Amino acid sequence: MDNGRENNADREMGLQDEVIKKLEDKEELSVERIFENKEVPSWRKQLTTRAFAVSFVLSVMFCFIVMKLNLTTGIIPSLNVSAGLLGFFFVKTWTKVLEKSGMLKQPFTRQENTVIQTCVVASSGIAFSGGFGSYLFGMSERVAKQSAEAKYGLDYKNPAIGWMISFLFVVSFLGLFSVLPLRKIMIIDFKLTYPSGTATAYLINSFHTPEGAKLAKKQVRELGKFFSFSFVWGFFQWFFTAGDDCGFSNFPTFGLKAYKYKFFFDFSATYVGVGMICPHIINVSLLVGGILSWGILWPLIETRKGDWYSADLDPHSLQGLQGYKVFISIAMILGDGLYNFFKVLRQTLAGLFYKFQRRNANMQIPVVEDSSRVRKSLSYDDQRRAQLFLKDQIPTWFAIGGYFALAAVSTATLPLIFHHLKWYYIIVIYIFAPTLAFCNAFGCGLTDWSLASTYGKLAIFTIGAWAGASHGGVLAGLAACGVMMNIVSTASDLMQDFKTGYLTMASPYSMFVSQVVGTAMGCVISPCVFWIFYKAFPDLGLPTSAYPAPFATVYYNMAKLGVEGFSALPKDCLKLCYGFFAASIVINLIRDALGKKRSWFIPLPMAMAIPFYLGSYFAIDMCVGSLILFVWQKINRAKADAFGPAVASGLICGDGIWTLPSSILALVGVKPPICMKFLSRATNTKVDKYLGS
Amino acid sequence: MDNGRENNADREMGLQDEVIKKLEDKEELSVERIFENKEVPSWRKQLTTRAFAVSFVLSVMFCFIVMKLNLTTGIIPSLNVSAGLLGFFFVKTWTKVLEKSGMLKQPFTRQENTVIQTCVVASSGIAFSGGFGSYLFGMSERVAKQSAEAKYGLDYKNPAIGWMISFLFVVSFLGLFSVLPLRKIMIIDFKLTYPSGTATAYLINSFHTPEGAKLAKKQVRELGKFFSFSFVWGFFQWFFTAGDDCGFSNFPTFGLKAYKYKFFFDFSATYVGVGMICPHIINVSLLVGGILSWGILWPLIETRKGDWYSADLDPHSLQGLQGYKVFISIAMILGDGLYNFFKVLRQTLAGLFYKFQRRNANMQIPVVEDSSRVRKSLSYDDQRRAQLFLKDQIPTWFAIGGYFALAAVSTATLPLIFHHLKWYYIIVIYIFAPTLAFCNAFGCGLTDWSLASTYGKLAIFTIGAWAGASHGGVLAGLAACGVMMNIVSTASDLMQDFKTGYLTMASPYSMFVSQVVGTAMGCVISPCVFWIFYKAFPDLGLPTSAYPAPFATVYYNMAKLGVEGFSALPKDCLKLCYGFFAASIVINLIRDALGKKRSWFIPLPMAMAIPFYLGSYFAIDMCVGSLILFVWQKINRAKADAFGPAVASGLICGDGIWTLPSSILALVGVKPPICMKFLSRATNTKVDKYLGS
Repeated sequence: MDNGRENNADREMGLQDEVIKKLEDKEELSVERIFENKEVPSWRKQLTTRAFAVSFVLSVMFCFIVMKLNLTTGIIPSLNVSAGLLGFFFVKTWTKVLEKSGMLKQPFTRQENTVIQTCVVASSGIAFSGGFGSYLFGMSERVAKQSAEAKYGLDYKNPAIGWMISFLFVVSFLGLFSVLPLRKIMIIDFKLTYPSGTATAYLINSFHTPEGAKLAKKQVRELGKFFSFSFVWGFFQWFFTAGDDCGFSNFPTFGLKAYKYKFFFDFSATYVGVGMICPHIINVSLLVGGILSWGILWPLIETRKGDWYSADLDPHSLQGLQGYKVFISIAMILGDGLYNFFKVLRQTLAGLFYKFQRRNANMQIPVVEDSSRVRKSLSYDDQRRAQLFLKDQIPTWFAIGGYFALAAVSTATLPLIFHHLKWYYIIVIYIFAPTLAFCNAFGCGLTDWSLASTYGKLAIFTIGAWAGASHGGVLAGLAACGVMMNIVSTASDLMQDFKTGYLTMASPYSMFVSQVVGTAMGCVISPCVFWIFYKAFPDLGLPTSAYPAPFATVYYNMAKLGVEGFSALPKDCLKLCYGFFAASIVINLIRDALGKKRSWFIPLPMAMAIPFYLGSYFAIDMCVGSLILFVWQKINRAKADAFGPAVASGLICGDGIWTLPSSILALVGVKPPICMKFLSRATNTKVDKYLGS
Repeated sequence: MDNGRENNADREMGLQDEVIKKLEDKEELSVERIFENKEVPSWRKQLTTRAFAVSFVLSVMFCFIVMKLNLTTGIIPSLNVSAGLLGFFFVKTWTKVLEKSGMLKQPFTRQENTVIQTCVVASSGIAFSGGFGSYLFGMSERVAKQSAEAKYGLDYKNPAIGWMISFLFVVSFLGLFSVLPLRKIMIIDFKLTYPSGTATAYLINSFHTPEGAKLAKKQVRELGKFFSFSFVWGFFQWFFTAGDDCGFSNFPTFGLKAYKYKFFFDFSATYVGVGMICPHIINVSLLVGGILSWGILWPLIETRKGDWYSADLDPHSLQGLQGYKVFISIAMILGDGLYNFFKVLRQTLAGLFYKFQRRNANMQIPVVEDSSRVRKSLSYDDQRRAQLFLKDQIPTWFAIGGYFALAAVSTATLPLIFHHLKWYYIIVIYIFAPTLAFCNAFGCGLTDWSLASTYGKLAIFTIGAWAGASHGGVLAGLAACGVMMNIVSTASDLMQDFKTGYLTMASPYSMFVSQVVGTAMGCVISPCVFWIFYKAFPDLGLPTSAYPAPFATVYYNMAKLGVEGFSALPKDCLKLCYGFFAASIVINLIRDALGKKRSWFIPLPMAMAIPFYLGSYFAIDMCVGSLILFVWQKINRAKADAFGPAVASGLICGDGIWTLPSSILALVGVKPPICMKFLSRATNTKVDKYLGS
């Protein structure tokens, strides 16, 4: 439950609820009746070259965006809507051009659209689960060195494009095979909700109705407008960033004192957009966390300088204030993670128990459903969909065989990449992985809450402790985390996609192939994109950088904590950590006790933890986004709901894509010409005198 | 024809044309029929205390705004709409509150509204004609010293609040009396158009119809919104202006090289608003002038450094590049002024001749009209209005007696203030003044083009030359300019107001009283406001200041030119001046030859001259304003036309009013805390090293 991606589970549930409500109303009218006289192409025809070409372009684009988010704050909002809109837009334009020239062989179908969506989501999913902002980069020397002295010599593994690609290839496909046989049970028998997958499907279905296409066109135009604005704004900002602390991203909007404690608006179009997508409570939670930590707690701890920690430490030493920041964040993240782990586990087990009971009871009746949500739609839609879904069967021997084959390759290869990760650790992981993958896919279907990074943390602590400090436990733990996270996360992604495919009448074959192709793309694109960032911004990962990669530090220190225990913590830090760990659980308990409606004002501990380390600047951006959306909704609710996500996507994508030319400029050594500097009056007088003389 | 105020004649004619067209359509329905059952209060009842209270508040406000504009660029757009809206808003709110509490004795009538409007316009008119940005401040030591060595010792008169108030009091009322007897001839017999006055009247009339009041309310809300924004923006900017070259007003938007040549967007809400009010052609002319001078001409002349002018001069010496800037501006301003002087004079004489002919022919028929504009409205409206207008007669002996009395006082007092201004110069001015005042009032009625500053310049050259260099001709010239400008400008203002009063059925008595009270207010408020600026910003009037008062330098140098001839000019400057003087006339000739419609793309020489001295930064602001309005009109023409002026007024007023607290902060010694500095990369590296060590 660390990278913000999971925060958004909450959001998506909120947003999707609405979408689903609307679509339930439509469901009564039957979606499939609308598409009745449209032929469903065979699965081979769903996998067109143009679909994969568009997917590739979008994958590169979203990889840049996700990577930027990974490396700045680790908060990644759902980009499904933008991927959907852009995919639809590209292919639609393409087919229109061909249609006019009379060369169109095959019309653009919603199945093809689903293939693109699946491929892009799978590929940009790797940019997240590849751990470039967390475990993978956490292994690097740069991050490790920040944690000062290591007791048993400094273990690290610097990023290199070769081993990163190999690593991703050997671990990313296992998840797909592990849950493949359970497809029918989860989608047809249990009829799990998969809110994200369902929402995506409805989005795609709506694109292919005439009125939906018209709205989509308008949304694309809005997206394009804000994309351009955001891109140009990023470009404009660039000119003023010669040197550190220069430019709009260091604008002391609330004064220099507030700036010192990271309270400022940094003019980032990305995070304003992210704020527009995330629900208000997340943005407010971030700000509350920032105020609590950088506004109150850190200044208080600073007064203890020389008492609680040595006064002549490097300001970024984990023995000093930085340690409090990192470890209290970790405590809150773990508290929240643990709470949600048990909560989702309980729900999963209860759900499973209930489903199996019902299934046995209704063995002969095919698809009568229990979920209150889908109650109304017994009939036509489900029958048609189930028919198609069951037509293209993937044999179980293929899934099981594939899993074992991949596991064997993986077990042989991984110890070559990470010397501390012994083959028997890997076998143990692969024994437990399918169960965990199933749990995660099932829980995600019920709650939309992927616990991938929680399972990853589990691996860090268990494998790390098993290996032990003297045998590179830190690295072994981080690598194990990667293995675990990739399996668990791709498994739930695959199920989401199957759900989407089910609802858009796309064949399971094409879904699987598209997921495999997307994953393969991701395994190549993501490391390359990360490599560009890594080479272009040499201070990547340092706390003062524009790309601090906060979760890399957090993951490294979790691993260290698991291996070496609490001994490295500064004075009284452990007590504070216990406090925040407990607070994190208590707040979650209160939220759940009050219920969704009445707990709207209680902040989310996970969201509060991120600014503990980073400061509030991005939280202020996001609150500005929230405010814009709020005011917009007050002025024109319907318009805000229809175009808000498009505007937000435009802001995020434009700024995200600007990182591509900006990193290229950095790589070829073109430096910005001007420094927009902020000096106090006294310093300015000194500087003026110096420059005058 | 120098201070931009007259530029706007063109604009107002454009804008007012539209308004008048609309109102002509309405006229057919008869405005006075709408107001038929509303009683016209007696003239004493039109002059309420609340009207003058509101006028006073607005006068102070507009004084600040006009003064800011005076001292930054000298371009002053028509603020009639904002004064009208705000006046209406204040009294309406006030009467509503009283009405609710049952204490309202007298309803708010359009006559009262006209009184407020007249008073505010008269008072803020003094802020312009008082010459704080031109002749008055041009006498100061600070401005005089910029013109390096004076041949006959440096004559100057520094501003002091005492003599400024006395000076304004003894010269500002003469204009009112000089044209008072001609009231009936100009308004009733000649039925001159007075576009500004007419537009104001229609604005006020519309406020007092139910639908007009509703629109006005919305416009006021829009104005308020942008007022607040602009004020807050001004406030926000302030924090970053510790030290010179700091803050948004020195933002090198197009790079440091362009900034050096004054091409940058300086984020001034005022000039974006001014750009929205001024017609596109003026904004474009400014930009063209800026590109021509700072983009091409000055860099070319700079290459002649050491040849055309000495290389080791102070960069602001008039012997160097600065001299080219100032004198070429003057040449263009004089060329344009002279052309328009003769053009308006010709029109005036032709118009007079024609009118008198018609008048003699139609002597007995009361108000049949020739002007094509008002042709349609023979009838009801005119009869009612003329009846009321003629009811309250101001006796001619009062006007003539008043003029002589004031002239006597003035002749006795002025030489005490300006020792070089002999009493016989003054008498000569006062002999010619009524004729010139009449000419200006008549010309203004025909074309909306006030030639006040052209007459002022005439006085500079004639009186200056008469006094001669050895007898303080520069000061005598500038002082004579003030005397002349005040008479001529107040005369045309009064006639405009009479026209407004005529169209809103306000009594000539109340118009005259209101004008007198407004002028008196202006004579006190303006010098005080100027004094605040003068004390708060010690670099006021220097070329590097935020308040360079460009026309002060221009006027001083015109006076010097008139007295000392061309000997002081740097090499080849005179040839360039002749060229630009001729170009200015030729461009005007072409404009007029092509006609209004076909000359839309030919820039106005007067507007081009201002950035010759100042650079293009404000021209860029104004073009941004133009662009905003243009795009807005493309999106929604009706809305842009209805709310554009309100938005622009909000932007101008908010930023203008911010100068009040900002100058108070400067006076009490509160300095901004942060400097937003722009350094080249190389300099930044040096500074970082210096600050680091």
